[in-house]
Amino acid sequence: MGSATQKQTTLQQTSKMKLTILGCHSAVPRANTNPTSQILEIKNHIFLIDCGEGTQVELRKSKVKFNRIKHIFISHLHGDHYFGLIGLISTFRLLTRETELHIYAPKGLKELVTLQMKLAGSWTNYQLIFHELTSIESELIYEDDKVEVHTIPLDHRVYTNGFLFKEKLGERKLDMNATLNADIDVAYYNKLKQGFDVENNQGELIKNETVTKKPNKSKSYAFCSDTAYNETMVEQIKNVTVLYHESTFLEKNEQLATPTKHSTAKQAASIAKQAEVGTLILGHFSTRYDNLNDFKLEAQTIFDNVQLAADGKVFEF
Amino acid sequence: MGSATQKQTTLQQTSKMKLTILGCHSAVPRANTNPTSQILEIKNHIFLIDCGEGTQVELRKSKVKFNRIKHIFISHLHGDHYFGLIGLISTFRLLTRETELHIYAPKGLKELVTLQMKLAGSWTNYQLIFHELTSIESELIYEDDKVEVHTIPLDHRVYTNGFLFKEKLGERKLDMNATLNADIDVAYYNKLKQGFDVENNQGELIKNETVTKKPNKSKSYAFCSDTAYNETMVEQIKNVTVLYHESTFLEKNEQLATPTKHSTAKQAASIAKQAEVGTLILGHFSTRYDNLNDFKLEAQTIFDNVQLAADGKVFEF
Repeated sequence: MGSATQKQTTLQQTSKMKLTILGCHSAVPRANTNPTSQILEIKNHIFLIDCGEGTQVELRKSKVKFNRIKHIFISHLHGDHYFGLIGLISTFRLLTRETELHIYAPKGLKELVTLQMKLAGSWTNYQLIFHELTSIESELIYEDDKVEVHTIPLDHRVYTNGFLFKEKLGERKLDMNATLNADIDVAYYNKLKQGFDVENNQGELIKNETVTKKPNKSKSYAFCSDTAYNETMVEQIKNVTVLYHESTFLEKNEQLATPTKHSTAKQAASIAKQAEVGTLILGHFSTRYDNLNDFKLEAQTIFDNVQLAADGKVFEF
Repeated sequence: MGSATQKQTTLQQTSKMKLTILGCHSAVPRANTNPTSQILEIKNHIFLIDCGEGTQVELRKSKVKFNRIKHIFISHLHGDHYFGLIGLISTFRLLTRETELHIYAPKGLKELVTLQMKLAGSWTNYQLIFHELTSIESELIYEDDKVEVHTIPLDHRVYTNGFLFKEKLGERKLDMNATLNADIDVAYYNKLKQGFDVENNQGELIKNETVTKKPNKSKSYAFCSDTAYNETMVEQIKNVTVLYHESTFLEKNEQLATPTKHSTAKQAASIAKQAEVGTLILGHFSTRYDNLNDFKLEAQTIFDNVQLAADGKVFEF
């Protein structure tokens, strides 16, 4: 029993979704503020989202195993979201990586990285696979048996996508007491988890729902940066567990947000409210603000469950 | 007299050559080691030499005024020597720089930076002037009335230049006692400093060397990274005040240095000895070594005046 309990605990732990903020500031890297980058750990994947300058150093500080990153998602080709990527690709090579690496990014990045490698006279010794994005409609860009990733079309000064990461609905969970009482052979347990009715050792049909419980609610994470206030995303991100939405400015500086196609904290909160998300995380703060708590206070006038991103901060859901 | 003394002190101070190491490690940026970048302050110029990832943050830590950097010299297009450049160019734009910026770099960088700006849909609002280098012979790439900069052809895996920064010989210095005793009108002082003989108030010809002293010895700095052991540079860097020479490896790892076209500490010292330089600074250390003092000890078996570069370290000469 001890070992079974331990296994169950482990399963529960791995089903947690973990978000590590490597950088959450806009524009210019400074001694104490990093540009956008984050790690989403979901269903045993380590997804890297955006990769501003300095990301590889932040990855080291956060003790992320470089080799476990197999998929990198780049929202758009403004420097504060990708200038650290070529260095990371190059570092992977120097670390003699062999695992293939997938990069999902706007068209153009492949040409750029290829030129950089040509100029350096060095090519990766691992497979580097670009998935160039051009669609202005949401598309499914990654899928396996546990998780899927869709683009979220955003409204910014250049072609930009957010990303929606969704766990697939898991297996049903055995009610062990009921299963044992029903005298079902262990060989049928997998069928039960998949939702089938099965026969027990006496040849009686056992209805699935009498011996299993609903799977855990599947979790989801929507990354939306950079974007102007954009209600068209609401339907797609409806009820997500966590929404990371940029809030470069406070409402008092809305006149800066509008022409640069960024959002205010209040606008981010309005999207969160309409989409009825679980938690709103604010980020991509302009470095002009000293007191980031003002972002939280402003957002909470609209939507209650607000968190502030911070470089190095870890969220678990 | 007080003000004259003060002025003289100021002049002496500005004639110091100051080298700030922003990063001096090879290959991969880590939490505590930065790739190559340094600032040379010489004759009121602030020259940036190489620009690995993270340079702009190191510049901030070293309190260098971004706007005073007008010339950037890039040795070669391996990432650890230039991946921080595009971010810096971009930051200059965000800081609404107006001063023009000159970049001296191997051909290819202009195409790359242009592509990055095209993808971001944003162009600098200051003049960005590329001086693309292709010559395999040394060439004069910058000159004004105080200083000149020459390339030093190096031997590396891709086209690479070191850079030789030389103060021009300054004006002769007035021997004020002798000048006053000779009763020379102040209007002639500039002519004296330029080396001319002049007439005094009595119409007598005063020989220049009787009332002036030699100018200060002009200083020079040679930056040589990255390069294999390469005696052909010796003649060009003969007697420089300071030589920064890469020493990626210790002699015990010479089998790594040779195929990668890097140098050992001993080889760097041998170049310093043959060129009879004033001071040798070692840098571009491989991150495989824990005790960098071994580099100094090894070099000192050949050449005595050896210093070790370190991130953030400042040298004055």
